[in-house]
Amino acid sequence: MRALVIDDGKLRFEERSTPTPEADQVLVEVASAGLNRADIMQMRGMYPAPPGWPPDVPGLEFAGTVAAIGNGVKSLREGDRVFGIVGGGGHATQLITKEDLCSPVPGGLDMVVAGGVPEAFVTAHDALVTQGGLRPGQRVLIHGVGSGVGTAAVQVARLLGATTVGTSRTEAKLLRAAELGLHEGVIASETMADEIDEVDVVIDLIGGDYLATDVRVCRSRGRIIIVGLLAGANATLDMRTVLSKRLTIRGTTLRARPDYEKALAARAFEREVLPLLARGDARVVVDKVFMLDDANAAYEHMVTNEGYGKTIIECG
Amino acid sequence: MRALVIDDGKLRFEERSTPTPEADQVLVEVASAGLNRADIMQMRGMYPAPPGWPPDVPGLEFAGTVAAIGNGVKSLREGDRVFGIVGGGGHATQLITKEDLCSPVPGGLDMVVAGGVPEAFVTAHDALVTQGGLRPGQRVLIHGVGSGVGTAAVQVARLLGATTVGTSRTEAKLLRAAELGLHEGVIASETMADEIDEVDVVIDLIGGDYLATDVRVCRSRGRIIIVGLLAGANATLDMRTVLSKRLTIRGTTLRARPDYEKALAARAFEREVLPLLARGDARVVVDKVFMLDDANAAYEHMVTNEGYGKTIIECG
Repeated sequence: MRALVIDDGKLRFEERSTPTPEADQVLVEVASAGLNRADIMQMRGMYPAPPGWPPDVPGLEFAGTVAAIGNGVKSLREGDRVFGIVGGGGHATQLITKEDLCSPVPGGLDMVVAGGVPEAFVTAHDALVTQGGLRPGQRVLIHGVGSGVGTAAVQVARLLGATTVGTSRTEAKLLRAAELGLHEGVIASETMADEIDEVDVVIDLIGGDYLATDVRVCRSRGRIIIVGLLAGANATLDMRTVLSKRLTIRGTTLRARPDYEKALAARAFEREVLPLLARGDARVVVDKVFMLDDANAAYEHMVTNEGYGKTIIECG
Repeated sequence: MRALVIDDGKLRFEERSTPTPEADQVLVEVASAGLNRADIMQMRGMYPAPPGWPPDVPGLEFAGTVAAIGNGVKSLREGDRVFGIVGGGGHATQLITKEDLCSPVPGGLDMVVAGGVPEAFVTAHDALVTQGGLRPGQRVLIHGVGSGVGTAAVQVARLLGATTVGTSRTEAKLLRAAELGLHEGVIASETMADEIDEVDVVIDLIGGDYLATDVRVCRSRGRIIIVGLLAGANATLDMRTVLSKRLTIRGTTLRARPDYEKALAARAFEREVLPLLARGDARVVVDKVFMLDDANAAYEHMVTNEGYGKTIIECG
């Protein structure tokens, strides 16, 4: 198998022997794998892979075909089309994962596009519903609405019956988000809180000073779910408002979770998001697709923050 | 009836006509009522009473005897011994509350002592269990362990099967907390995080810089429940740790809740705390009892922060 390898802050390719799946493991012939900001951070040495996953091969999600199964695998067989989140190893022609971390790819979904689904949609659904408790009729604010997770969150929230408010730095991204069903778009600024009516849930992919806006625009018992820290990790928290509004602030990340929790998130995704994707009600917004051999260009593209939606690496 | 009244930042007494209970209302002959920091804040003009409660009579809890009932009251009758939290009005010889906000006072409990129960024990149980999700076997850190809520939280957490860690500014308060069952006592300092092993839940009555300690000592998926802000309302939040540990930070206050939520908290208190008080397994720690006519001295005493446990005003 051919794998993208992180070596001292740089990317190179390596030919490795194909591993054999054991017990509940599955060998997947990777068709495609999304690129995520965590991959960039890992390349820069700031985000090591969790134990039990390849320490030097990036790639936190995949879509592909089952090529071989371990003795304990019950529900999958060779040739099945699957996708899912992994702790690493996605940016390669083959990877080893576990049966419980795989979900079936809906029939109508292109396999290259499918590789951009899991991280964005599992993260968005988990943050909105499992962590944020979003209910029909509520209002949700999504910061970074043009990102992979942002474009997924807008669609999932709208299809759940919520009203969506989104922020982005550019008008162009807000217009594209409106095509996905975003109800209210706001250009990100220091004064954006003035333009946002009260919300029940915030999905914050930006962090930094945005936290002050989050606290201000939440209504009583609001939930602020911190998913990313593009604008920085430190912020001043106004605890008096947190207390008087009885707010909840929660940090979330998929990668750090043990596999059994990743499996739980995959089941919730299958129940509540997969039908939306299968019917075509929700779709992955594909920014650009790069071939595995052009992975360097893909990583460079992501760093610019100019993309809209998912950057995908075609591995097959 | 005789009522303590807040008038331009000062306390005075006023004779008022006794109100008549209507619908689900109950007139209570107040035996005693705890004094709380919120009363001090209200006196200083920083914490107005919620709508529907006396705007100028402090007192957020009471114990007393039902003196009259409205036509819609089903479960209480004249002469019943009750206690509960109220939105205000406790520091008077009589008050009007609602049936659903009253809980029965256990037979063995002295009525003067009983007035110090509701705010501390409802707040502690709600913060530990309902908001914090504390489970048997978990570790809980309680900042401000010598306060009314702190002394209640130590006992409730221990009786739930949790291991209790408490902080206080003085060794004397830690020794007294140990008598209540506190397992590990730590003198509050800037470096206290170094002395505290990982915890699952933090009950923070202090706020300010303590938040940094809370974030540091929480284990993965820990819950930080902010109940008070004695040390200030602003703090720098390390969101990277919040995210990587998947922490939850939640502000809570009883007073701002609508009556139906106060009633919910009262039912949870009846189910899980009242039996502990009835058996004598948990007890109110009484700091000082003042007569209603000496309310000024009681308020001055609370401001010193030198007390240990509840300051109670005897109204009957």
